[in-house]
Amino acid sequence: MAKVGILMGSKSDLDVVKPAVSVLKRFGVETEVRVISAHRTPDEAHEFAANARENGIEVLICAAGKAAHLGGVIASLTTLPVIGLPVKTDMMGGLDSLLSIVQMPSGIPVATVGVNAGENAGLLAIQILGIKYPELAQKLAEHKQSMREKINADDKALQEML
Amino acid sequence: MAKVGILMGSKSDLDVVKPAVSVLKRFGVETEVRVISAHRTPDEAHEFAANARENGIEVLICAAGKAAHLGGVIASLTTLPVIGLPVKTDMMGGLDSLLSIVQMPSGIPVATVGVNAGENAGLLAIQILGIKYPELAQKLAEHKQSMREKINADDKALQEML
Amino acid sequence: MAKVGILMGSKSDLDVVKPAVSVLKRFGVETEVRVISAHRTPDEAHEFAANARENGIEVLICAAGKAAHLGGVIASLTTLPVIGLPVKTDMMGGLDSLLSIVQMPSGIPVATVGVNAGENAGLLAIQILGIKYPELAQKLAEHKQSMREKINADDKALQEML
Amino acid sequence: MAKVGILMGSKSDLDVVKPAVSVLKRFGVETEVRVISAHRTPDEAHEFAANARENGIEVLICAAGKAAHLGGVIASLTTLPVIGLPVKTDMMGGLDSLLSIVQMPSGIPVATVGVNAGENAGLLAIQILGIKYPELAQKLAEHKQSMREKINADDKALQEML
Amino acid sequence: MAKVGILMGSKSDLDVVKPAVSVLKRFGVETEVRVISAHRTPDEAHEFAANARENGIEVLICAAGKAAHLGGVIASLTTLPVIGLPVKTDMMGGLDSLLSIVQMPSGIPVATVGVNAGENAGLLAIQILGIKYPELAQKLAEHKQSMREKINADDKALQEML
Amino acid sequence: MAKVGILMGSKSDLDVVKPAVSVLKRFGVETEVRVISAHRTPDEAHEFAANARENGIEVLICAAGKAAHLGGVIASLTTLPVIGLPVKTDMMGGLDSLLSIVQMPSGIPVATVGVNAGENAGLLAIQILGIKYPELAQKLAEHKQSMREKINADDKALQEML
Amino acid sequence: MAKVGILMGSKSDLDVVKPAVSVLKRFGVETEVRVISAHRTPDEAHEFAANARENGIEVLICAAGKAAHLGGVIASLTTLPVIGLPVKTDMMGGLDSLLSIVQMPSGIPVATVGVNAGENAGLLAIQILGIKYPELAQKLAEHKQSMREKINADDKALQEML
Amino acid sequence: MAKVGILMGSKSDLDVVKPAVSVLKRFGVETEVRVISAHRTPDEAHEFAANARENGIEVLICAAGKAAHLGGVIASLTTLPVIGLPVKTDMMGGLDSLLSIVQMPSGIPVATVGVNAGENAGLLAIQILGIKYPELAQKLAEHKQSMREKINADDKALQEML
Repeated sequence: MAKVGILMGSKSDLDVVKPAVSVLKRFGVETEVRVISAHRTPDEAHEFAANARENGIEVLICAAGKAAHLGGVIASLTTLPVIGLPVKTDMMGGLDSLLSIVQMPSGIPVATVGVNAGENAGLLAIQILGIKYPELAQKLAEHKQSMREKINADDKALQEML
Repeated sequence: MAKVGILMGSKSDLDVVKPAVSVLKRFGVETEVRVISAHRTPDEAHEFAANARENGIEVLICAAGKAAHLGGVIASLTTLPVIGLPVKTDMMGGLDSLLSIVQMPSGIPVATVGVNAGENAGLLAIQILGIKYPELAQKLAEHKQSMREKINADDKALQEML
Repeated sequence: MAKVGILMGSKSDLDVVKPAVSVLKRFGVETEVRVISAHRTPDEAHEFAANARENGIEVLICAAGKAAHLGGVIASLTTLPVIGLPVKTDMMGGLDSLLSIVQMPSGIPVATVGVNAGENAGLLAIQILGIKYPELAQKLAEHKQSMREKINADDKALQEML
Repeated sequence: MAKVGILMGSKSDLDVVKPAVSVLKRFGVETEVRVISAHRTPDEAHEFAANARENGIEVLICAAGKAAHLGGVIASLTTLPVIGLPVKTDMMGGLDSLLSIVQMPSGIPVATVGVNAGENAGLLAIQILGIKYPELAQKLAEHKQSMREKINADDKALQEML
Repeated sequence: MAKVGILMGSKSDLDVVKPAVSVLKRFGVETEVRVISAHRTPDEAHEFAANARENGIEVLICAAGKAAHLGGVIASLTTLPVIGLPVKTDMMGGLDSLLSIVQMPSGIPVATVGVNAGENAGLLAIQILGIKYPELAQKLAEHKQSMREKINADDKALQEML
Repeated sequence: MAKVGILMGSKSDLDVVKPAVSVLKRFGVETEVRVISAHRTPDEAHEFAANARENGIEVLICAAGKAAHLGGVIASLTTLPVIGLPVKTDMMGGLDSLLSIVQMPSGIPVATVGVNAGENAGLLAIQILGIKYPELAQKLAEHKQSMREKINADDKALQEML
Repeated sequence: MAKVGILMGSKSDLDVVKPAVSVLKRFGVETEVRVISAHRTPDEAHEFAANARENGIEVLICAAGKAAHLGGVIASLTTLPVIGLPVKTDMMGGLDSLLSIVQMPSGIPVATVGVNAGENAGLLAIQILGIKYPELAQKLAEHKQSMREKINADDKALQEML
Repeated sequence: MAKVGILMGSKSDLDVVKPAVSVLKRFGVETEVRVISAHRTPDEAHEFAANARENGIEVLICAAGKAAHLGGVIASLTTLPVIGLPVKTDMMGGLDSLLSIVQMPSGIPVATVGVNAGENAGLLAIQILGIKYPELAQKLAEHKQSMREKINADDKALQEML
């Protein structure tokens, strides 16, 4: 069974992370959710990243805000794909978090999703896992179909309302 | 053999895309490089995306600038992971391209890398493929080691220079 | 009778869209209001755009937020004028939506109004229709006159208040 | 024959305006190109706008940079549709021009295109005129087809090159 | 007696304008406060500006938000000094208003104060009038002294509190 | 004869300041141009500001870049009107300079002009002096007329060229 | 015993400053907390800075918002290290305060921490003092250990919760 | 003798770092200049930071660009004061580097200087060392005096030139 490691730099990021956990569980993917700070627990970050692959983790999601280094630090220590999830801040709506994550120097990419886009972080992990686990790609196709139906239902409801 | 589809919205994006192609070739990954515009060739975009999986493509890289819709449009039409590569523009150094790619609505993520970060787009594709193809993960570990050695050599050269 | 198609990417955009609908109704223009997502219902978007002209629609208004691709996607599939209405977000007050809509590549313009400027989207549609339907241009002149009178009344009230 | 008025706030904006003129000429639309400054020739601006409709103009394009008031000033004095064309500046790539044009207060919209997007300003004028002049809509469809062929040719050339 | 004209583009700007009125009254300067919109009442704006000097006005304050053209439009029609007061908006805290006012083209300056800085707009008017009316400069010196005393009192209170 | 003090924080700002000096000379206003740094020569700044009024200066222009404190520091030490002239930098086209000058706290305004807008700084000084020296207001009216004629000539030349 | 001077430009900045005071007290560092405005009490600022060293102060913290000149003004008058603490504003989340503090011209640095980062301002003062007072460096090491334990406890709690 | 460690994330940052080295040498401070990347040589970064204090280093300067994590990563591993030096990039003039460095989470401050402000990074190190080494504070006072004299000389030269 596929497993995704989800790290947040502070437990205050939990609300942003929860939709990622939910979507992964809904797709039947195992999650390991951790509070690990690049700056306050650098040794734990190092240890977690170095052992992630052999602990069965295949994709990592790292949520952090402001000078958000967690994704980059983890990515520097593993060859697994790392998804960066910028947490909204007061500084221009999270632009600090976003730039700190996405503008990685050449050699160490972090796959960045939108600010506070927890659900998309989870879905991106599914897309990635889907290249190895065809059943996840299949479930994703069904999920896309259900999103489509939901929009169509909203559309119909709106027609009736107006 | 793994295959990555690389799309650019205009042939003027080729210089940004080339480092992605190079890195993929260096890792022995097949590439299919295409000029397809979300806005000027919407039907081609639709057809490419809809058939990508059965054409053997496992990861997609989409480079575009300004109101950069290519990644999102392709992602809406496939369950494969889509890497968005924002091309630098005059508008605040490519912030328009970046936001147009990374701030995707819930349901359709695009894995965004930094502005003009073609090499990182290629390496992220390798990281993703590495969860299925262990030899790519292994080569990536070697690549990280060689980057380390390069930095160490630069460090040594600097010590001798100063 | 003139008809304007109004699309929103999500029903949560309805509050931003309503002033556009109101102003069009006030001017006696027929509206077709739809929830269609560029990313979650790409086929519906395609079908709607491709058939808009023969369905009697003459102007389109597309409201969307964040990586707001709806206007561009619709514009790529029709020769009708498309008005882009950026929805406010947390990212710098909607700058992401604005740039994703206005910075279209050469060849496919989207006529962009201000962030959350639903009423102006409607009035711009009237201005455009007014080149074909003189009575709309006439009504618009009256509307401008009534805005003027309203400001003058505010001015007079302020003089009396101070 | 359809006619478009094209204003620029300074003759230094001519290079940005030229692609709009070219595209309109290519589509057989008459143009009246003027240097009129909202701030340095307010009376001329007033007179031009007030008489535009009866002078046979059906769409206006206003190019200006920095605190770019030309579009708004003209729009306040006519019921014709006004296209705002922001000129690039040093301030964040023209963000000052863009915001000064697009963020119009309720009641007086300006149909804004991207920074320095002269060609798109011209094409938007064609789209607007196309609702009245079917032959322009038809030519626009042909233009879109030729853009598509050009991208396809670029795509083919790239395949052969790589 | 010195007189300052204070214009706002919409009565909703009154709260931002009030501190300017208050400070001018406190200094014994006459004010004429008006709701005049550059876009919705262009003729009134024109008339007001053209006659301001002979109506005894010596300084003008113009408050407006978003694409804030009022200051520039008034400045184009008078040789009196015009103070621009940007009103806060959702777009990056009023950056749209600020840039629309301060980035005036060469030839027509607007003396811009901070976003929502109504009191400073009033004080700047006093500073300007003070070069002609020595008693205003004298009162300003006293005002600066009282500000100093207020800060000193805050400082003392803080020492005692801590 | 009216006198304007023009300060720059560094002699490297001279090119930005020169158009202000030129315009003042053209209007027959005396200038005292000084290199005084708020940070590197605080005592000189203090002394200059404290004595400006009795040295016959009636308006001050302060040009500075980056964390541009010169205008604010001078304004804190005099009751004369202070014009802030932000110098262009690499940081978003001078946004750092602009915000450091315009966003003054309540009580100490700085009359800010656009980035690198030296000519406008000079013209704003003329506008201010014009409330005391009618001949300057008169010359300003003539200057506005000549700007108008210049635009009209550009307009005519363009008509002939196209 | 080490002593840190903490200045705020207005008593309204006290909430941002308090965490700095708390952390310094917790580390046994003496504090002198003052309300001193660069603009409203320039003489007091001058006197405080000029005498800080001989009054036993070794590090200064200056909190200010908007056009935040306090840190730079103080730094211009002392050779002690000055920590700049930008206070959040409405303008893009405090970007005005941040740029006004950090972008100091060559020669007069201000050691800037994040927006509203009072605790970090205090900790940076401790780090600086720690190079002279080994017991502070020791306490800082213990503080880092306790932060680590707190994150670890959060991590454990989360594991149990999920 | 005091010693400062100067790290850069890439040898391409050397030009930005050089002025820091120069100023430190001019003040007689020993420097250890290293190329160490937070992301490409995380182990070297860890080892360097952990041993910096016992290697006699008292202050650290870390230069990095884009998602600039070097300063934060080093600061997480030492109790020495860390100065962050943001390197200019294309993204809004280095705003990405600046925010990635200055917006550190609570607990781990980085003393940030302006973008590309190498000399200020060096001078800040001197200010910090000056609280322990009085001769450095003395030299700094002399340096400030010489900067003052330089500005005064520029001022005099300008007077003669004009």
